[in-house]
Amino acid sequence: MPYVNIKVTREGVTAEQKSELIEGVTALLQKVLNKNPATTVVVIDEIDTDNWGIAGEQVTLRRNRGE
Amino acid sequence: MPYVNIKVTREGVTAEQKSELIEGVTALLQKVLNKNPATTVVVIDEIDTDNWGIAGEQVTLRRNRGE
Amino acid sequence: MPYVNIKVTREGVTAEQKSELIEGVTALLQKVLNKNPATTVVVIDEIDTDNWGIAGEQVTLRRNRGE
Amino acid sequence: MPYVNIKVTREGVTAEQKSELIEGVTALLQKVLNKNPATTVVVIDEIDTDNWGIAGEQVTLRRNRGE
Amino acid sequence: MPYVNIKVTREGVTAEQKSELIEGVTALLQKVLNKNPATTVVVIDEIDTDNWGIAGEQVTLRRNRGE
Amino acid sequence: MPYVNIKVTREGVTAEQKSELIEGVTALLQKVLNKNPATTVVVIDEIDTDNWGIAGEQVTLRRNRGE
Repeated sequence: MPYVNIKVTREGVTAEQKSELIEGVTALLQKVLNKNPATTVVVIDEIDTDNWGIAGEQVTLRRNRGE
Repeated sequence: MPYVNIKVTREGVTAEQKSELIEGVTALLQKVLNKNPATTVVVIDEIDTDNWGIAGEQVTLRRNRGE
Repeated sequence: MPYVNIKVTREGVTAEQKSELIEGVTALLQKVLNKNPATTVVVIDEIDTDNWGIAGEQVTLRRNRGE
Repeated sequence: MPYVNIKVTREGVTAEQKSELIEGVTALLQKVLNKNPATTVVVIDEIDTDNWGIAGEQVTLRRNRGE
Repeated sequence: MPYVNIKVTREGVTAEQKSELIEGVTALLQKVLNKNPATTVVVIDEIDTDNWGIAGEQVTLRRNRGE
Repeated sequence: MPYVNIKVTREGVTAEQKSELIEGVTALLQKVLNKNPATTVVVIDEIDTDNWGIAGEQVTLRRNRGE
């Protein structure tokens, strides 16, 4: 029954990578807390780099600097 | 003053259906908890089926199997 | 498969009222979007009035004024 | 280490305005709670006006009425 | 820089188990998306069983039936 | 109409500090986006240090090391 929300920047995450995240998180919750995979929900949000801030600045600016 | 967030898969939800969800949830909170509709906020998030996982797999795969 | 999060102030919401919210929202999603109740998840968060702000002030202050 | 999520309607928010929100919130958390800006995360969600409800109706309808 | 929110029912999750979840999710994001662990944030919410609904009913009721 | 959620560790945030956060964020949204303070909602979540992870470990452990 767990609900997991993963937020990452929108930078070319593939369908295959999303699938690995969903599988991995679901398995982790089963291993650590014995949660039933059948009702584990995972939602991935991809956020534009203009809309994500860290250290007071947009990720876009960090990417432009090559960080 | 309640805040409600509804997450569903992005599969052709119409503007009219969204309107019904907003109306229905706001009415429910007034009926059950006597909350003032004027300040009840509802936000609907539509999530790509690639980004939604249940039972360890993407909804896209389930839809491809006709589920 | 929908996920619904309801946030209200922590002001004596009873177990029965929570049950009505869960039942009502689940039924609404079935009625409007034909969503399967079996996998509809509802999470209710109760927030201290000190931690909820509207119009730039804490709800606690509004309650103290009888609003 | 704070995490801040700002949700606004998608109505032409510019990159510059997003930058000001990120900067302003990060500075506020440093001023009020002495939080280290280096690990303060801000995520801005822009929500279609069809998907945002207030007072039981979609923001789209309010905008159509000039509100 | 990812942000992950894990919601589970409040049913005796130990500090050690929380630690395993944090470690596991952070490692998963590094493995799948090459995300820097140093800025990966994980927040675990424990939700009272009265406040969690599935299939239109409170988890409390399911637990009372031994499910 | 904006909705802002601020998550910080539960480490003695006072009612007065919460009030400053609510006031400050509401003013920022008015200044940057001309949002009406009357309908700006702010919710502050305080998270136990056992439930907050950064760099793959619980904040509790960092605090124990004096970080």
